[in-house]
Amino acid sequence: MDRCAIGIDLGGTKISGVIMEKDGASRHLTRIPTGADKGGGTVLENILRVIDEVIRKEGAKEHILGVGIGTPGFVDKDGLVLGGAENLPGFKGTRLFEPIRERFGLRATAANDVTATALAELRFGAGRGVRNMVCLALGTGIGGGVVIDNRVYKGTHGMAGELGHISIDFNGLQCTCGRRGCVEQYASGTGIVRNAKLICFEASEYENTPFVEAVVRNPDALTGKIVYDYVEAGDRIALNVHKFVCDSLAKAIGIILNSFAPDRIVLGGAIMKSGRTITDTVEEFIPKYCWPEIWERCDLVVAQCGENAGVLGAGAMVFDEME
Amino acid sequence: MDRCAIGIDLGGTKISGVIMEKDGASRHLTRIPTGADKGGGTVLENILRVIDEVIRKEGAKEHILGVGIGTPGFVDKDGLVLGGAENLPGFKGTRLFEPIRERFGLRATAANDVTATALAELRFGAGRGVRNMVCLALGTGIGGGVVIDNRVYKGTHGMAGELGHISIDFNGLQCTCGRRGCVEQYASGTGIVRNAKLICFEASEYENTPFVEAVVRNPDALTGKIVYDYVEAGDRIALNVHKFVCDSLAKAIGIILNSFAPDRIVLGGAIMKSGRTITDTVEEFIPKYCWPEIWERCDLVVAQCGENAGVLGAGAMVFDEME
Repeated sequence: MDRCAIGIDLGGTKISGVIMEKDGASRHLTRIPTGADKGGGTVLENILRVIDEVIRKEGAKEHILGVGIGTPGFVDKDGLVLGGAENLPGFKGTRLFEPIRERFGLRATAANDVTATALAELRFGAGRGVRNMVCLALGTGIGGGVVIDNRVYKGTHGMAGELGHISIDFNGLQCTCGRRGCVEQYASGTGIVRNAKLICFEASEYENTPFVEAVVRNPDALTGKIVYDYVEAGDRIALNVHKFVCDSLAKAIGIILNSFAPDRIVLGGAIMKSGRTITDTVEEFIPKYCWPEIWERCDLVVAQCGENAGVLGAGAMVFDEME
Repeated sequence: MDRCAIGIDLGGTKISGVIMEKDGASRHLTRIPTGADKGGGTVLENILRVIDEVIRKEGAKEHILGVGIGTPGFVDKDGLVLGGAENLPGFKGTRLFEPIRERFGLRATAANDVTATALAELRFGAGRGVRNMVCLALGTGIGGGVVIDNRVYKGTHGMAGELGHISIDFNGLQCTCGRRGCVEQYASGTGIVRNAKLICFEASEYENTPFVEAVVRNPDALTGKIVYDYVEAGDRIALNVHKFVCDSLAKAIGIILNSFAPDRIVLGGAIMKSGRTITDTVEEFIPKYCWPEIWERCDLVVAQCGENAGVLGAGAMVFDEME
């Protein structure tokens, strides 16, 4: 039987796992709730349950090289969770690798979830063919993943690539990380919704577009998807929100370009369902914020791996590090 | 005879070259003027003159592995100068490697000068013992060099690490690169002097410290060294300038920490003659601008290799890439 990996994607609401082959083919996709509210011990137990389940479905484990885990926040090379995962209270301090070794006799590796996603895009998606790549996942927050010379760059302690916390305005909006002006306060789903409300309430004093009316009528119902429905419909104020979002993203991407000079930047996450609407506008703003020589040699593209990117990237780490 | 490298450091005013052994021991240091005002062809001729001169002093070239060149701006893996070196007009488009191969039968490699400096610090100086490191050179401008996993990271086209052009204020000071708020406008020698003048002229309306008096009397004579002489003397307004410089640096370093999560950040360049005066104050500001988990695992130190860092790093690239 061909050598396989187990890929685990730990999210704030669910844990996913697969058996994966080196070419990215996967089977036995298993999903259970994370149980984040029950604390770190329960989360770890649930990770072990998913591993147990995919091995059971596979019916054998002798051909399994190891387990790769993508997790929110920071996890070091020994599998110790160092922090940064605000959606998993009590998870900091968890040791991920020992229980996997003890219970299944398998080695494990781990990385931040978006770092794993970046590897999936590199091997199987929008990053194929390049050596240096940066991935931004625009979801509830903004995560980052960095590929250097065809390998994921985790940093010595697994903390590299916190690109959602690049400050684009040091006097700007307060961020959940404690600092100010982080790009995720402007261009994540949460940030887009909050800023859209501000812009709509201000606009409502002089102009009432359908978007403004809908937001003012029921601000609590607003989502990133609704914002982008109105953007696609050409609503003038929604387009203002869109430009503000894309300008904010372009500022962070300008800093990323000047720092990493990657061959490609991949934008993924739920917000990127609006795909080229976003990348096209971001591209208009980028030249204001970086060296033209660098930007001329970089592509900005939409992620391709979809919601399975996390498990595939986690599995790909196993082949990269254990084969 | 032990295998050796030729290390060349191309600067705006002079070109330096040495014969170097793998452990960093060097001989036959040769320096000639760059001749930047005479155009790119003259600069290339002068590089070849330095190579010729160090080979002549060495008396043999059979044991020489190759030539490493550190240059301002961007140079790609084929030795083509892509731009970015404002102090070398007409140098863009120069092909560095072919004439070296033709005239001396030697292979060549190249990188941005601060990237080469970072490698020197990694192998022979303040970066010994770490795998992931970022170097900032605070001179007329601010250059950056990045070490990932014990190797310099140049980016596919030799343009990575333009860290002096991290914007810390997108509405801020106009930079020579065409963008706004680049940290080099605040914390390079040029930036420090300019901002010190602004601060002193403003302060002169309500407070006259010896520093303010000296600057107002003869603003054109001000240098970074003079600013730091008054800082060391405890002048209150000079200390304000110092805090502004260090806060600006800390903002850029916060972004670097969140992006690269390096084990160590090395500050070098002429401004760093003031050494720990600067790093101590920068360290006070950094926690405002990055994840504490990342900063806790990083050192901020002063460069050790001095003015020979450029040639040593250029030579070290030869051993890294050709041995």
